Amino acid sequence: MILRNFKTVSHISFGRGCFERLDEILAQKRKNSNSFIVFLVDDVFSGGKLSDRLPVRSHDLLSYVNVDNEPETTYIDALTDKIRAFSDHLPEGIIGIGGGSTMDIAKAVSLMLTNPGSSKEYQGWDLIKNPAVYHVGIPTLSGTGAEASRTAILISPEKKLGINSDFTVFDQIVLDPDLLSGAPSHQRFHTGMDCYIHCIESLSGTYLNAFSRAYGEKALDLCREVFLEDGTDTDEKLMMASYFGGMSIAYSQVGICHALSYGLSYALKLHHGIGNCIAFNQLEQYYPAGVREFRFMMKKQGIKLPRDIAKDIDDDKMEKMINVALMLEPLWENALGADWQSIMTRDRIRELYQMM
Amino acid sequence: MILRNFKTVSHISFGRGCFERLDEILAQKRKNSNSFIVFLVDDVFSGGKLSDRLPVRSHDLLSYVNVDNEPETTYIDALTDKIRAFSDHLPEGIIGIGGGSTMDIAKAVSLMLTNPGSSKEYQGWDLIKNPAVYHVGIPTLSGTGAEASRTAILISPEKKLGINSDFTVFDQIVLDPDLLSGAPSHQRFHTGMDCYIHCIESLSGTYLNAFSRAYGEKALDLCREVFLEDGTDTDEKLMMASYFGGMSIAYSQVGICHALSYGLSYALKLHHGIGNCIAFNQLEQYYPAGVREFRFMMKKQGIKLPRDIAKDIDDDKMEKMINVALMLEPLWENALGADWQSIMTRDRIRELYQMM
Repeated sequence: MILRNFKTVSHISFGRGCFERLDEILAQKRKNSNSFIVFLVDDVFSGGKLSDRLPVRSHDLLSYVNVDNEPETTYIDALTDKIRAFSDHLPEGIIGIGGGSTMDIAKAVSLMLTNPGSSKEYQGWDLIKNPAVYHVGIPTLSGTGAEASRTAILISPEKKLGINSDFTVFDQIVLDPDLLSGAPSHQRFHTGMDCYIHCIESLSGTYLNAFSRAYGEKALDLCREVFLEDGTDTDEKLMMASYFGGMSIAYSQVGICHALSYGLSYALKLHHGIGNCIAFNQLEQYYPAGVREFRFMMKKQGIKLPRDIAKDIDDDKMEKMINVALMLEPLWENALGADWQSIMTRDRIRELYQMM
Repeated sequence: MILRNFKTVSHISFGRGCFERLDEILAQKRKNSNSFIVFLVDDVFSGGKLSDRLPVRSHDLLSYVNVDNEPETTYIDALTDKIRAFSDHLPEGIIGIGGGSTMDIAKAVSLMLTNPGSSKEYQGWDLIKNPAVYHVGIPTLSGTGAEASRTAILISPEKKLGINSDFTVFDQIVLDPDLLSGAPSHQRFHTGMDCYIHCIESLSGTYLNAFSRAYGEKALDLCREVFLEDGTDTDEKLMMASYFGGMSIAYSQVGICHALSYGLSYALKLHHGIGNCIAFNQLEQYYPAGVREFRFMMKKQGIKLPRDIAKDIDDDKMEKMINVALMLEPLWENALGADWQSIMTRDRIRELYQMM
C-alpha cells in the first residue's frame, strides 16, 4: 500500500472566475470540424444562469443528468449508448459539472466509452483495461473529493461500489469557488461533512502515511475554519478542503462510516453525504473526538438529522445492507486492522443500523 | 495569475522503500531492445550504496553530475550533446537523482533534447515550444520544491534564471524518505530553509490565493515540526513540506529573499539554500516574524552562518548582482506590489547586500 504509485489530476485551474477559462482549455482538444465534446451537467442547472455560461459549440452534446438518486450502472450504460448513437467516433472530452454524483457519472462514462461491456463489470479495484476519454471535473458542491479521487462510485443491483483505477482520475479539474454559491445550506453541510468524515477515518486508519496525513490534517483544519469559525473565503476553503481530502485518500482509506453509509445509499437511496452524517452520528465508540466535533458543527450550522430511518427496513433488506457494507473490505481493514472480521460481525453491523 | 491552469506531477510514489519501485516504473517505458534510459545522479553518490541500487540496464547511460556549483547552461548543453552522441535516438526517460540542482539538471536536459539551440535561450517564462522527454525526479535532499515546480533554475553568463514552463514539470517523482538520511545536517538545514523561506514569502505575497495558502500553511507547519520540535518521522515530514512548498508556488511567488539569493549564487557561487539563509537573515524589516522564527530554528539546530560575505565584492560585480536580482520582476511584484520599483531601488539592494 505504502509503495503505491499515485496518479494525480494533471491540470488544475483554481480561483473565482476560472470557469470562464473552460472554453479556452477545451479549444486545445478540438482537433477538427468533426470533433465534439460532451457536457454532462446536473439537471438542477437546466435553464439557469450556469447553463447560459456553458461553452457548448454546435457539434457538442449537452446532456443534463439527474442525480436525485445516486448513479446506477444502468444509467451509465444508457448515457454511454446515447453518446455512441450521437456520433460514430469518440468525443474529444467528457465534462462533468455538478456534485460528486455528476462527477462520478462523467468519470464512469469516459471509461465506458473505451472499455467494452457494462459498467457493473468494472466495479472493484483496477479492473479497467483501457485509458478513458479525456475527462474534466467541475464541482458545484465541495466535500466528496471526487475531483481528486481514483474512483467513480456506482450502484448496481447487488452492490454500491466504485470503479477504482488510475484511468478514473480526471485529466483536468476546474475549481471555481463561485460555483458553490447556489447550493442549499443543508446540502453544503452534508457534502462538506463527507470531507470531514473521510479525514477523520483516514487519519485514524491503519493505512495512513505521512503523505496522506499532511493532506488529511490540512483538510480537517480547513473544515474547522469553514464549519466552526465565522471566517471569510469559506467557499475557497471548502473547495480546497475537498481537494485535499480526496488527495489524503491516495495512501489511506476511509473507514466504518463510509462502509455503513454505502449500505444506507443502497437500501434507502440516501445520498452519500447525508448517509455519512446519519451513520457517523452513531459511531462515537469508534471515532469519539470526531463524532463530538461533528455534533458541534451540526449545532453551529443549525442542521437536524432524520431519526429512526432504519425502523421500516425488513429483514431481507437489512441483510442486503449488511452485505453491501461488508463488501468494502479495505475500509474495514483500514479502520479495524487485519482482524476486523472478528470485531465487525453481521450482528454488530445490524445493531449499528438499527440505532440510526 | 489566479486563472492559471496549473500543471502538476502526474505520478507520485511516496514512502520508505519506494525507490525500489523505480525499476518497475521504468520497465513500462522501455519499448524495445534499443530503448535506453539516462540516469543523472549527483556524484556524491558515485561508488556508494545508492549507486549499487540504481536500476541501470545494459543499454542505459549512467552519468554522475557535479553540482559543487549550481548548474550552468553550458553544462546542460554539454550533457545534452553527450546524450545525443550516445545514441541516434532519444532516450525513453531522464532520471534525476539528487538535490534541487541535480533535479533541475534532469529537467533542463529532458527539455533540451527536444528543443533546439542552447538552454540559455529558454531562461524565462514559457519560452519552451516542444514537450520534454519523459523525466523523473528523485530527491535525496528536501526543501527546494524542485520535485513539484515548473522551473529548472540555471546560471548563464549574464543571469541566474529558471526555464519556467509546463513542460518542465516532472512526469513522475519518487519520494523515498530513506534517501534523505545521508545528508550532512547543515546541508539538510539550508535546503529545508529554502522551503520555510519560500512559504514565508508566498504567504505574505500579493499573488496568494486559497490554493497556495493551503499548501503553504501546511508546509510551514511541517517545517516547524521538523526544525523546532523534537518529533518523529522528520524525514517524511520534511519531504512532504518540500513537496507542499513547491505546490504552494503554483499560484503565488517567492519574494525578496529569493531575488537577492539569486544574486549571491550568481556572483559568489553560493548554493541557493545557504544563499537564502544569508539573505533572509537580513530581511527582518520585510518578514519580521519569519526572520525571528528562522533565527530560533538556526539556534535550535546549532547552525552558524558565514558573515561579511560581501566585503570583497568590487563595484562591477556588485552592479551585476543587483542586475541579476532586479531581473526577477515577478518576485519583487509579489513581495512589494505593482509599485515595487519605487521601493526597491538599486541603492537599497546594495545596502542589503552589504549587510550580508
